[in-house]
Amino acid sequence: MTGSMKIEELDTPVLLVDAGALERNIAAMQDIAAATGVAYRPHSKTHKSSIIASMQLDAGAVGVCCAKLGEAEIMAASGIPDILITSQVVGRNKLVRLVQAAQNANIMVVADNEDNISDLSSAAQTAGKPMDVLIEVDVGQGRCGVPPGPEATRLARLIGDTRWLRFRGLQGYQGLIQMTADFDDREAQVRLALEKLMETADHLKRNNIEVDILTGGGSGSSIIDTALGGYTELQPGSYVFMDSRYRSAQWPGGAATPFENSLTILGTVISRPATDRAIVDVGYKAASSDGGPIVPLGYENAEFTFAGDEHGQLFFPGGTCPLALGDKVTFLPSHCDTTVNLYDRYIVTRDGTVEDVWEISARGRVQ
Amino acid sequence: MTGSMKIEELDTPVLLVDAGALERNIAAMQDIAAATGVAYRPHSKTHKSSIIASMQLDAGAVGVCCAKLGEAEIMAASGIPDILITSQVVGRNKLVRLVQAAQNANIMVVADNEDNISDLSSAAQTAGKPMDVLIEVDVGQGRCGVPPGPEATRLARLIGDTRWLRFRGLQGYQGLIQMTADFDDREAQVRLALEKLMETADHLKRNNIEVDILTGGGSGSSIIDTALGGYTELQPGSYVFMDSRYRSAQWPGGAATPFENSLTILGTVISRPATDRAIVDVGYKAASSDGGPIVPLGYENAEFTFAGDEHGQLFFPGGTCPLALGDKVTFLPSHCDTTVNLYDRYIVTRDGTVEDVWEISARGRVQ
Repeated sequence: MTGSMKIEELDTPVLLVDAGALERNIAAMQDIAAATGVAYRPHSKTHKSSIIASMQLDAGAVGVCCAKLGEAEIMAASGIPDILITSQVVGRNKLVRLVQAAQNANIMVVADNEDNISDLSSAAQTAGKPMDVLIEVDVGQGRCGVPPGPEATRLARLIGDTRWLRFRGLQGYQGLIQMTADFDDREAQVRLALEKLMETADHLKRNNIEVDILTGGGSGSSIIDTALGGYTELQPGSYVFMDSRYRSAQWPGGAATPFENSLTILGTVISRPATDRAIVDVGYKAASSDGGPIVPLGYENAEFTFAGDEHGQLFFPGGTCPLALGDKVTFLPSHCDTTVNLYDRYIVTRDGTVEDVWEISARGRVQ
Repeated sequence: MTGSMKIEELDTPVLLVDAGALERNIAAMQDIAAATGVAYRPHSKTHKSSIIASMQLDAGAVGVCCAKLGEAEIMAASGIPDILITSQVVGRNKLVRLVQAAQNANIMVVADNEDNISDLSSAAQTAGKPMDVLIEVDVGQGRCGVPPGPEATRLARLIGDTRWLRFRGLQGYQGLIQMTADFDDREAQVRLALEKLMETADHLKRNNIEVDILTGGGSGSSIIDTALGGYTELQPGSYVFMDSRYRSAQWPGGAATPFENSLTILGTVISRPATDRAIVDVGYKAASSDGGPIVPLGYENAEFTFAGDEHGQLFFPGGTCPLALGDKVTFLPSHCDTTVNLYDRYIVTRDGTVEDVWEISARGRVQ
């Protein structure tokens, strides 16, 4: 039924996923990882879809990452067997939910605090099931995590002293460098972050603490993360969709990234108030703005500005707007993760027709 | 059951509505309108809740505004009897949905284009039910709408020539001036917008076209809109919740706005990586950023910055962060409408305890 519907027949604004581009992106990351034998665990915070998570696992991913416990609950309930929650899970209520979700999947968590480790141990004991824990290290982002060096060893010992937690390794994520445009600059920044992680791992090993897992990295740094060695697992997210900001991150030799834009927003011209501008039905509620303006594909000379919660403006400087009332315009989001979080479902397309509709099952699961 | 739960026991991030403040805001707008006899039709794009819409109608509102057809469908299905859709409804699919929704409620639409008027007429004819139409006039925002003056008369005649549409009046909304801080500046700007609307209405009347409705205005301009005369209906939205930006809009004599902040986000400290900063679980997915940073209540010396999709940072310049792991922090959103659109439900509180949970039933209804 939906297979015969054409994209231009859809009501707008609507979030579109190009199935072919998505499949090629998933295959491309598998190729990058397979070339060096580094495992990868894609971040489901980007797509919030158990269907896409399953596609990633089928391609060869070792599991998925979740940013929030609420996402992990959805993924576990959907049958995803192996999950790393990459943000600290803090508070009694949440730890009760965590050990409950861990009955249905292997869930690993990160910690950077002694009290949180103590609470995690109590929760795991209550549930009667040991839990794997990573220590998060701040490798340069200046967000969560212990400083590089001996503090991780102290916390790993605390974890080792409990009966219900198992220390498995370190997480060190540097998100700020993922979109650095110049490849050599980005490589230098990745080296700096990785050195901090390795220094911390060495301290642990010198103290006879086993370090199975070193996880970090992202879509922009993936080819560097695998080439440098050190990480045992990568956690790229955006590569499934990409967005206008990620496009600028060059590949070696100034080449373009191998990941395609598979995520777009379709909008409609709802007003033509002047010869040089059109108003579309895409505003702050249909496209996230934290990454800047969205990009009108095929109208690269037009300037897009958000014109409120429900409107966007396409201004054609010095020219005549070629758009008529009712015309459809395809936009490239500036930030895929936060745009996805506005929608309840993906309309999945192939060769210009609607192939499927996928629920964004973890949308809004911020807790 | 929920009545006995304390706010600090809630999992976070969570969107809280203070029932008392909400009720006082709804009463305050009714007082402003009643003092001058101007009708008001609150904008449900802000709250997207049929429960709050019903509270506004109970207080004396003549109906509600919706920004999108999808919101109007939810409001109509919830029994809201009278709805104005303030954005143009464009395209065959949507017009079919429009006339369907109009079987359950009196729905009025705005138009600024001849082809759209023709399509509206066909759709109303097919449904066998006449539809009320307003012409939108651009009174200074530079978004949708015909220019002030004779073009509205031309379109009103087209509407009058159809058997299935009824011309009812004009919409002229100037959103850009709602948060102008200085009262006198704001009043001068409101006068300018109103003059353009009245000039257009005069042109219609001189051509013997009846103008029943002149609608516009917002929360920031409400006291000016009622005092100046001219509008027959106002469409304030944000007054139910307010936000950090709206707070700066002064009332006459430099007084504070009578509307209280009833909407907050509760977050939790999930990491204490350094003595002068804390990381909370509120990022781009839990608070909109299009209005700027959110405001930590009770920690006004702290600087909030978004630290990614899931994290926020509170930095205490030159000082020591007083927050411990697990501490709760209450934030004032910078833009209420786009923050509400991230959440599936309101947790309604009174005197520090949870009183109710309301579904945000039109969340994500961008079509």
